[in-house]
Amino acid sequence: MTENVNRQIRLAARPVGLPKDSDWDLVEESVPGPGPGEVLVRNRFLSVDPAMRGWMNDRKTYVPPLPLGAVMRALTVGEVIESENSDFAPGDPVAGLGGVQTFALGDGRDLQKIDLSLAPLPVWLDTLGIAGLTAYCGLLEVGEPKEGNTVLVSGAAGSVGAHVGQIAKIKGCRAVGIAGGSKKCSYLVEQLGFDAAIDYKDEKLSDGLKRACPDGIDIYFDNVGGDTLNTALARINVGARVVICGAISQYNATDIPSGPSAYINLLGRRSRMQGFIYFDYRSKWPAMQKDLAEWRTTGKISTEHDIAQGDVDIFPDTLLRLFRGDNFGKLMIELPV
Amino acid sequence: MTENVNRQIRLAARPVGLPKDSDWDLVEESVPGPGPGEVLVRNRFLSVDPAMRGWMNDRKTYVPPLPLGAVMRALTVGEVIESENSDFAPGDPVAGLGGVQTFALGDGRDLQKIDLSLAPLPVWLDTLGIAGLTAYCGLLEVGEPKEGNTVLVSGAAGSVGAHVGQIAKIKGCRAVGIAGGSKKCSYLVEQLGFDAAIDYKDEKLSDGLKRACPDGIDIYFDNVGGDTLNTALARINVGARVVICGAISQYNATDIPSGPSAYINLLGRRSRMQGFIYFDYRSKWPAMQKDLAEWRTTGKISTEHDIAQGDVDIFPDTLLRLFRGDNFGKLMIELPV
Repeated sequence: MTENVNRQIRLAARPVGLPKDSDWDLVEESVPGPGPGEVLVRNRFLSVDPAMRGWMNDRKTYVPPLPLGAVMRALTVGEVIESENSDFAPGDPVAGLGGVQTFALGDGRDLQKIDLSLAPLPVWLDTLGIAGLTAYCGLLEVGEPKEGNTVLVSGAAGSVGAHVGQIAKIKGCRAVGIAGGSKKCSYLVEQLGFDAAIDYKDEKLSDGLKRACPDGIDIYFDNVGGDTLNTALARINVGARVVICGAISQYNATDIPSGPSAYINLLGRRSRMQGFIYFDYRSKWPAMQKDLAEWRTTGKISTEHDIAQGDVDIFPDTLLRLFRGDNFGKLMIELPV
Repeated sequence: MTENVNRQIRLAARPVGLPKDSDWDLVEESVPGPGPGEVLVRNRFLSVDPAMRGWMNDRKTYVPPLPLGAVMRALTVGEVIESENSDFAPGDPVAGLGGVQTFALGDGRDLQKIDLSLAPLPVWLDTLGIAGLTAYCGLLEVGEPKEGNTVLVSGAAGSVGAHVGQIAKIKGCRAVGIAGGSKKCSYLVEQLGFDAAIDYKDEKLSDGLKRACPDGIDIYFDNVGGDTLNTALARINVGARVVICGAISQYNATDIPSGPSAYINLLGRRSRMQGFIYFDYRSKWPAMQKDLAEWRTTGKISTEHDIAQGDVDIFPDTLLRLFRGDNFGKLMIELPV
């Protein structure tokens, strides 16, 4: 190896509210070769996800908090460069938690060998990665859709939401999306085949729900939290499933957000609200990825990729685009080769 | 029939906050004999339940709102007096929705013939009625306890809560109750066999939960809502089940209560929060009642009855005792014979 300078973005401070430049350090270090059992991967694409904001807090969720000074956690796809692990060989394409850095050295436990005949590399961060798998697990494993159900999804033009609506259609449901702005809403209905969209910037959500969900809501897939969740809860049907996938509206909150007072409808309408993490379904991923690849190949799932080109130093600004909602499609960074 | 004057409590106005005297009318009318298919029941015991407050609002929940001028809805046990319905004969003991009145005339669809060899009449409003069945359905059908789980219940000294803790013990769980006052807390631990009790009037709930649930909460059975729910959600384990049975702290609220901001833990801890109504399990009641009767007979379930003696005119004051929390055990009214 000649080019073994590893550029890394490390967490310098715990952000309060939106992450600032001073919360990050750019560090360069040399990469040692792999020791016994280890694999060295060159990262090619970094996934930029809302969940990253939670990983930066000093609070255990489904993963330990990222220690100060550590390389920022990120989902990645790349290529094995050197391997002292019999499960991987140089040249293998892999997906994993490689972090915001050029090279990732590890024991291979977080790595999945991926099959590029199913889909090209960046799709493994989208439809066959976090976005598609999250939608698949949340809608099909937690939401349990039945044909004819009304499925409402917030953050619908986001990478997860777009998959949720399209999988809902595949399963014979009515798909309704909530998004901000007419461009996103047209995209949902005209490009992705949603039955209806609600532009929360243009219409009061409760009015939009009356219009777009005249028979109530059977499944609400929530990426947003806050008032959106509360307003949706007011319109759930008996036996509804509220799938808690995220709460992007409150990830950067510095005050305690108000909770959904309409949770009490879970009682009168005998409904459930359930959180999930797609990591828990890891043993089922290969089967899910096969379904997702087929739906993608046959045109039942289409997506947009919003790929920022640049080195790891563009990560801090790219992350902020998510919270401004000005990305369009799955946000990722393609590192220079 | 000679004594066919029916004394009734009718809903005169929709209460704002706690029900007032002027929200009720006492009416006397004569009872006609049953027409074809009808059954006339003399009510003997009236069940006084927190859910009654919700029935008085002009809002559909799991039952239609009670119309103004209608007899107050109530669960009752009594005796068939006259019958033109082949399913019932004079002398049959029955449970049903007889309302706050001396006699109930109906088509028999809400009536269950009851077996007094399993338990005497008032127990069919408690362990074999709303309290025991609600605990059974909520804990066993919704909560799905596993041996060794920590089961937390609020309103634990109430009729439902007391059953929840005892059924949790039968299923090999650790039972922890939240109640107000040392008398209720001693009762839980010393009489009912709870493993621990938290007196919310004496100890900050979050401190009490740390002490009494050192390994977190696997099932939280909520009768109370409000801050209690939110504080419990902060301490749930991965895979927890939060069973929403009631929200007595907010039934009389005139402002919109704040929702549980800690609902977001459902995500990180991959948990679910689910409401239920025991009416939905009606087809399973006979089997559940058999279990409950056996547990009662063998001393595994013990309860207290708080029986107010008097005519239907004591109902308004008796109902208020529930919301003051000064009843002890299942509250009911025994009508004079």
